Amino acid sequence: MTERIHNFNPGPAALPLSVLEEVQAEMLHFKNSGMSILEISHRSELFGEVLASARNRARRLFNLPDNYRVLFIQGGASLQFAMAPMNFLGPEDRADYINTGTWATKAFEQASLLGKKVRYAASSEEKAFSFIPKTADLDPKARYVHITSNNTIRGTQWQHYPDTGEVPLVCDMCSDIFSRPVPVEKFGLIYAGAQKNLGPSGLTLAIIREDMLHWNPDAVMPTLMRYKTYSDHYSMYNTPPCFGIYVAEKVMAWLENEIGGLEKMAALNRAKAERLYRALDATDFYQGTAEKEDRSPMNVTFRLKNTELEPVFIREALAAGLGGLKGHKSVGGCRASLYNATGMDAVESLVNFMDDFEKRKG
Amino acid sequence: MTERIHNFNPGPAALPLSVLEEVQAEMLHFKNSGMSILEISHRSELFGEVLASARNRARRLFNLPDNYRVLFIQGGASLQFAMAPMNFLGPEDRADYINTGTWATKAFEQASLLGKKVRYAASSEEKAFSFIPKTADLDPKARYVHITSNNTIRGTQWQHYPDTGEVPLVCDMCSDIFSRPVPVEKFGLIYAGAQKNLGPSGLTLAIIREDMLHWNPDAVMPTLMRYKTYSDHYSMYNTPPCFGIYVAEKVMAWLENEIGGLEKMAALNRAKAERLYRALDATDFYQGTAEKEDRSPMNVTFRLKNTELEPVFIREALAAGLGGLKGHKSVGGCRASLYNATGMDAVESLVNFMDDFEKRKG
Repeated sequence: MTERIHNFNPGPAALPLSVLEEVQAEMLHFKNSGMSILEISHRSELFGEVLASARNRARRLFNLPDNYRVLFIQGGASLQFAMAPMNFLGPEDRADYINTGTWATKAFEQASLLGKKVRYAASSEEKAFSFIPKTADLDPKARYVHITSNNTIRGTQWQHYPDTGEVPLVCDMCSDIFSRPVPVEKFGLIYAGAQKNLGPSGLTLAIIREDMLHWNPDAVMPTLMRYKTYSDHYSMYNTPPCFGIYVAEKVMAWLENEIGGLEKMAALNRAKAERLYRALDATDFYQGTAEKEDRSPMNVTFRLKNTELEPVFIREALAAGLGGLKGHKSVGGCRASLYNATGMDAVESLVNFMDDFEKRKG
Repeated sequence: MTERIHNFNPGPAALPLSVLEEVQAEMLHFKNSGMSILEISHRSELFGEVLASARNRARRLFNLPDNYRVLFIQGGASLQFAMAPMNFLGPEDRADYINTGTWATKAFEQASLLGKKVRYAASSEEKAFSFIPKTADLDPKARYVHITSNNTIRGTQWQHYPDTGEVPLVCDMCSDIFSRPVPVEKFGLIYAGAQKNLGPSGLTLAIIREDMLHWNPDAVMPTLMRYKTYSDHYSMYNTPPCFGIYVAEKVMAWLENEIGGLEKMAALNRAKAERLYRALDATDFYQGTAEKEDRSPMNVTFRLKNTELEPVFIREALAAGLGGLKGHKSVGGCRASLYNATGMDAVESLVNFMDDFEKRKG
């Protein structure tokens, strides 16, 4: 058996070791059931407790006001790209999108494909999505403004959410959910695939303002595409992704009990990112790709000045126990994803490796 | 730690112990990755091998002709209830549904909700869905005929699939997939949520005839609702439910290597079911609810003559290590689900308990 490596994968990504150890220990016997968590009924009291705990932990972590609902869905962000406009935009309704990269574009395109009246209110495409727009041409009559809070591929993050007045934000928070506190009141819908900061792929967390459950402009829609279905049935209209919810519950328990909540998680994440960005900025051998003020603490994207060395860097890093450093295929280069479960020890190891690599090849 | 019980759950349900033990052993270290299966990229070579193996095992188990595709989807049967009509029925197209119980009804209702031209060609509702219709008023111009191969709640199963001529069957095979060989050529689409015979909830297997990928009558449809999206992208348009596919691959490996394929699995399933039905028929203390010729080997539904004893029976059975025997809430009574992973030892234990219970209470 090999050693566990330092995991900088962009998603699916590192999970807390203590969570994986618990999952392993319980795999044949979940509590006193005499069964695996994979084998128990979703209607059982035991699973009901897991689901309720997951919901309550999400509420506490985000300090959710009473008028928000926590939903567990399948299909990932890609299904949310369709569900949000289907649930919120009638034939005459309009929504604004802010384009900060690949996933923001995909969200817009899906709404557009469905015939919805959407437009870009701002974009950073002109500079290869290397920054977050500071102004936007917002439509005060828009039903919502869609943003992507963290851009996994381009390595940028909204440090201050845009001021949209009375218009709620709809936000793809896949790659930074629970990495920091969030002013939830600004949001009508937050959604996140689990596979970065929350658990296994195949689970989507959605947090929705209750009144928006009733906007439902489309009369004809598959039952499972309607947020209200999940709210009315406590995410149990049909069999939910039980294992994903079970792991996510443990990850949220780790956030609450081991880390101590999102303020502390954010401080740890800032410290990890600062350590790595400091190393990047100390040399021109490595070059960060995002504007400094918009840099993501979750996904640190960089190039080697000599781009031909990048495959060597990635290969040698893996051999040194540092995995997942290849940039997204659409942009190339390097990327270190520093999600919640990737510790400062991993960052220190990476910085040491980068320093050594530069000495050998620089 | 308690003993593992005999698991008669209707789903999520028993999985082979050897599979759970492998999942447990690999939880911190998947192959030589230094990571958990929950932490590796879906675009990695290692996961690519899992996905390809799962696809190939499904092909071999069903002996699939070349013109069928194997897809891995999310959302369960409930999403398929919408996807099938959305992908196969244009405004003027018609489809026939055969109503054999709750899930068949839900499939029909979802198509109907979406405004599709669907009708019941046969139904067993008149006798509380206790049988499978032997004739149907089939429309030769229908685009497909929808059936539910096994009725989990009512304990019936299609022993001989209906003759629909040139019209393809679309089949919800959730609760008996891979329990027996299937004449795939009769089918245009087979779909099954994984959580009965295949793996964890949150994964749906779909097997589709290639030409039906191109029927696509609806111009406007979320990208993830289109079967072609999954086929074009080898089920990787977006992040798939990796852990579910990983477990399902192991379950299919168990079917191929430990059991020896679907003919052998079917013989084992018949033997288990015959043992239990023989016990039911030997006394009037217990009474099977389905017509004998249509009885399901997967879900054995029965009542106690004295129905007041049913809660006692279920409670005492659980105390004796026999779990999951409660009938579906909509019909009450008792149900023993005998999916692939539930062995003859479990059935023998149940029969012995039933015999003892009758002696004490009869």
